[in-house]
Amino acid sequence: MRLRHKPWASDFLQEHNSIAISNPFDYKGKWKELFGNDHPIHIEVGTGKGQFLAGMAKANPEVNYIGIEMYESVIVSAVQKVIDEDIPNFKLINIDARELTNFFADGEIGRVYLNFSDPWPKTRHEKRRLTHKSFLDLYKQVLVDGGELHFKTDNQGLFEYSLKSFSWYGLSLNWLSLDLHKSDIEGNIMTEYEEKFSSQGYRIYRVEAKFPSEK
Amino acid sequence: MRLRHKPWASDFLQEHNSIAISNPFDYKGKWKELFGNDHPIHIEVGTGKGQFLAGMAKANPEVNYIGIEMYESVIVSAVQKVIDEDIPNFKLINIDARELTNFFADGEIGRVYLNFSDPWPKTRHEKRRLTHKSFLDLYKQVLVDGGELHFKTDNQGLFEYSLKSFSWYGLSLNWLSLDLHKSDIEGNIMTEYEEKFSSQGYRIYRVEAKFPSEK
Repeated sequence: MRLRHKPWASDFLQEHNSIAISNPFDYKGKWKELFGNDHPIHIEVGTGKGQFLAGMAKANPEVNYIGIEMYESVIVSAVQKVIDEDIPNFKLINIDARELTNFFADGEIGRVYLNFSDPWPKTRHEKRRLTHKSFLDLYKQVLVDGGELHFKTDNQGLFEYSLKSFSWYGLSLNWLSLDLHKSDIEGNIMTEYEEKFSSQGYRIYRVEAKFPSEK
Repeated sequence: MRLRHKPWASDFLQEHNSIAISNPFDYKGKWKELFGNDHPIHIEVGTGKGQFLAGMAKANPEVNYIGIEMYESVIVSAVQKVIDEDIPNFKLINIDARELTNFFADGEIGRVYLNFSDPWPKTRHEKRRLTHKSFLDLYKQVLVDGGELHFKTDNQGLFEYSLKSFSWYGLSLNWLSLDLHKSDIEGNIMTEYEEKFSSQGYRIYRVEAKFPSEK
């Protein structure tokens, strides 16, 4: 994603800190209190401009969504969507995902979404891929027992790597398509990227992977 | 594969029973004696007309190959290749793969190959797919500890199913391509099917899956 510097972004996020939570560490173990209900909490890591989670939040009012995005120049668009469309069950956090376990308690999260994550194609950058073991460790810790990771991408290399990484981690694949837009999936919510790339005829890959249950 | 009835096939196989082993049960645990050396034994389940294993056997004289094929009208072509090209490290067995553990001893096999297996796309035929758990059980039993299954196909649905089945079984994926002929693989030996379908622009999928080591 091309990033434009937005000098006003920081002030904008601060101004809307009931949507873009500026003190996420204070809510560790207490996110249900913020949402004011007991609904499950699903997160997206690398939420970009928020189109996916905005669509999910509107389609599933009985689920709370939190989008995590490290780039403030991008996350402002997601915050603007929540304001414009008045979506009560969608919050955002402008932070690096490596901090995940510092603001979510163990088992606090019901599901993790990854969509069109940065492929980091060079081998020396493997650890930066959001499906690398080091990130799977974080997801597992904050997820409920036997929680799921739902991942889609147009990047063949990242998808190949991710399937291998999942197998090394012992994840079970319960749903898999190597050509999502020709599959029988229902209710697929598209990201900005997905609309663009699938309309150009590129394949979209998607998988639902379940962490091993320890009970 | 379209099968032509060949009334002479049965006699032909009997005539060449030093290549098409007619009494495989007698060799359980003794295949090394048949080959006359201690080389590892790799098998292909559903070997068809034998082009893949013939190529592998010629490229890897330090490995012994056994092709298993249930249709005698097809396996005769593989036997003819062994005769024509005089390949000492390639034997064949005309039998149903469900018999596998009746003619191979536990741990006797070094690797299993599956190539362009019948997809059996209907859900009610799932158990017939050569990557179904019931077959993985057989492969695991005859394979060395931590042995590998190498699988390629042009069939997207079978590949998706197989990746899920492997994940449920706890297999590790150590090599994976969602577009083999654009990958960096070296020394790929093509099957008859693969030549035909890849030349028509279809993607070939390939994976190397390792059974969990129990030691």
